[in-house]
Amino acid sequence: MTDRPTLLINTTIATMIAADVPYGLIEDAAIVMEQEKIVWVGARADLPPQYGLSETHDLEGRLVTPALIDCHTHLVSGGNRAREFEMRLEGASYEEIARAGGGIVSTVKATRTTSEDDLLSDALRRVDALIAEGVAVIEIKSGYGLDQDTELKMLRVARRIADERPMSVHTTFLGAHAVPPEFKGRADAYIDDVCIPALKAAHAQGLVDAVDGFCEGIAFDTTQIARVFDVAKELGLPVKLHAEQLSNLGGAKLAASYGALSADHIEYLDQDGVAAMASAGTVAVILPGAFYTLRETQVPPIDLLRKHNIPMALATDANPGSSPLTSLLLTMNMACTLFRLTPEEALAGATRNAALALGLDQQGTLTPGSRADFAVWDVIHPAELAYRIGFNPLHTRIFGGKIEDA
Amino acid sequence: MTDRPTLLINTTIATMIAADVPYGLIEDAAIVMEQEKIVWVGARADLPPQYGLSETHDLEGRLVTPALIDCHTHLVSGGNRAREFEMRLEGASYEEIARAGGGIVSTVKATRTTSEDDLLSDALRRVDALIAEGVAVIEIKSGYGLDQDTELKMLRVARRIADERPMSVHTTFLGAHAVPPEFKGRADAYIDDVCIPALKAAHAQGLVDAVDGFCEGIAFDTTQIARVFDVAKELGLPVKLHAEQLSNLGGAKLAASYGALSADHIEYLDQDGVAAMASAGTVAVILPGAFYTLRETQVPPIDLLRKHNIPMALATDANPGSSPLTSLLLTMNMACTLFRLTPEEALAGATRNAALALGLDQQGTLTPGSRADFAVWDVIHPAELAYRIGFNPLHTRIFGGKIEDA
Ligand SMILES: [Zn+2]
Ligand SMILES: [Zn+2]
Repeated sequence: MTDRPTLLINTTIATMIAADVPYGLIEDAAIVMEQEKIVWVGARADLPPQYGLSETHDLEGRLVTPALIDCHTHLVSGGNRAREFEMRLEGASYEEIARAGGGIVSTVKATRTTSEDDLLSDALRRVDALIAEGVAVIEIKSGYGLDQDTELKMLRVARRIADERPMSVHTTFLGAHAVPPEFKGRADAYIDDVCIPALKAAHAQGLVDAVDGFCEGIAFDTTQIARVFDVAKELGLPVKLHAEQLSNLGGAKLAASYGALSADHIEYLDQDGVAAMASAGTVAVILPGAFYTLRETQVPPIDLLRKHNIPMALATDANPGSSPLTSLLLTMNMACTLFRLTPEEALAGATRNAALALGLDQQGTLTPGSRADFAVWDVIHPAELAYRIGFNPLHTRIFGGKIEDA
Repeated sequence: MTDRPTLLINTTIATMIAADVPYGLIEDAAIVMEQEKIVWVGARADLPPQYGLSETHDLEGRLVTPALIDCHTHLVSGGNRAREFEMRLEGASYEEIARAGGGIVSTVKATRTTSEDDLLSDALRRVDALIAEGVAVIEIKSGYGLDQDTELKMLRVARRIADERPMSVHTTFLGAHAVPPEFKGRADAYIDDVCIPALKAAHAQGLVDAVDGFCEGIAFDTTQIARVFDVAKELGLPVKLHAEQLSNLGGAKLAASYGALSADHIEYLDQDGVAAMASAGTVAVILPGAFYTLRETQVPPIDLLRKHNIPMALATDANPGSSPLTSLLLTMNMACTLFRLTPEEALAGATRNAALALGLDQQGTLTPGSRADFAVWDVIHPAELAYRIGFNPLHTRIFGGKIEDA
């Protein structure tokens, strides 16, 4: 990155601007960036003469897309659940696994006892897997602390990731993730005595960009989530919700009533919930990694979402229990294979709509004024990104206008 | 690699020797290699004194496993089926896709017209994805030529991969993969006039390590496959078969009657076929990538295979149509998630049993006398290799005794 504008030529670009051309594709295109911003995008033949003397970079015919965005992760966590995965496949029951210290409780215990530095170095390995695929923005949730100190520790680790790596991190407070063992049977007391005070403390320290909850029979009901969302509203924080994953409790409708950024999972979402999301402008975040890992059979109502023009975003849901997945490209393939999204919907889900799910309007498309965050791919057609399985064709990352070989 | 022995210390090793200790795990272990071979493996405390002065390499506590082996791939192919993947997801019918030039016929056309050098450079990208995961041995099939010249061209490309990369390649002649358009409705004539002469020609040029076929309603019946296998037998070549993938035609039983190395796919394998495989010592090659991509629901009879002690191998089946998958680690996760293999069975499937499926007795386990082909992983427990999804913890490759950072 220099002070002179940089001109990228000899490329096909997928602007991902919602329009009638698939992928917003421009052949023989050019992009001009200045500082950290895109200043011009279009067919090379239309390049304004003032950019002719820019520092020029030949992309040798490769495809440029917006850098990818992973808008729903639990990337910071302690411990390791591989042995639990193995026990389950060896036939252990849920009770046996719980007795052996497994399940989310094991992650909570380990996250509480692991130092901030160790949580950071462990999380960075997963972050680096995403960066290697051209991911420039990651959302990271708390929710394995379930006590004030540990929730804040997780959010500090998430913030530190953005210092350690050339990417931006959006933090989400997820105190309402599960009822911790010490509050067993007292979910209301946990919400009032721990979750809400921890949210206020985390916000006071500038650690919270959004507030999330897990609305499900095994976690919290809509009344409990509403109490947390009321506090978020007071604090001026946007909300989102894990909703309708295993059953329909009306979580998406509740979230929409708070103008939520997104409702996530939504396998069991119904017509009512879809209508509420549509009028609130709430994004549907699709998480096929959890569907795949849990061997679920109920597919999200994709056609209904399409019919109501609800933006569909995709994310890894990277977490040690139900989705130990750290590939957004594979997530795109899963969304196509398992949920029948088109490759274009999958790429929009990991760029434009993922940006919307995070409330970002300067990212996720290639538009003048947007951040110069691109992924340069060794592919012929953008459909290849979702088509291949376990293959990473990233050639170059350009984050904030800085060109870096992958 | 020097002439002095090399000693690897500070490691946990999974020898993958079939025994009663899971994974053949040895904690605080040591390995001694000399030239390209393993000369000693065991607990460090038991290291014979003569190896004490070897050139020593500290693995810093990491896990060593045998290098991985991908025993069933179609890695050499022309063209690109991403657009066909997209058309299908946009709702195109099989007829529309065929009219647009899609399906296996499109791969055959492209493979016939693509130069040997271009086929090689394209295949190397997929090979490199496998090498990045510690794969040291790959099987590669012909079968997209369906004419003599192109079948031989594919096999030459496969052989050249072993010159270009530090790995071994096992070639398989798969002339009986599909009936080419010019023989439509004349499968017998294709077998006699093209497939068998091409096999003889390829063998005469030293291009064939084994012979395969596709026994299925949409391809060849057992009588046609038997004619090809008879020629293989005359030539002294081992056989293997794509069998019982979409229906049960008795392919596995036929293959077993020829002493086949493996029967592959076998979702519809029945008791009879299992018994025949057990007495012939035929390996079951499990291909979850195709099952996933085709959204099949019939799972291979894993419990029956276990009951009959049939070795289960795993492979990517990397191919442009039904399994555009180039990650053996992800294949291991799919085998666990979709077919309920244990992580230990999955790792054995990508090492010891994959070696068996290729007729190799010097690879796939860490035993004195075996080739020094190892993968060094940044994991705590070997179950992590199958547990994570879209994550590659490879730290170092040691192929033929040569140490190389991943
Ligand atoms: Zn989640
Ligand atoms: Zn195959």
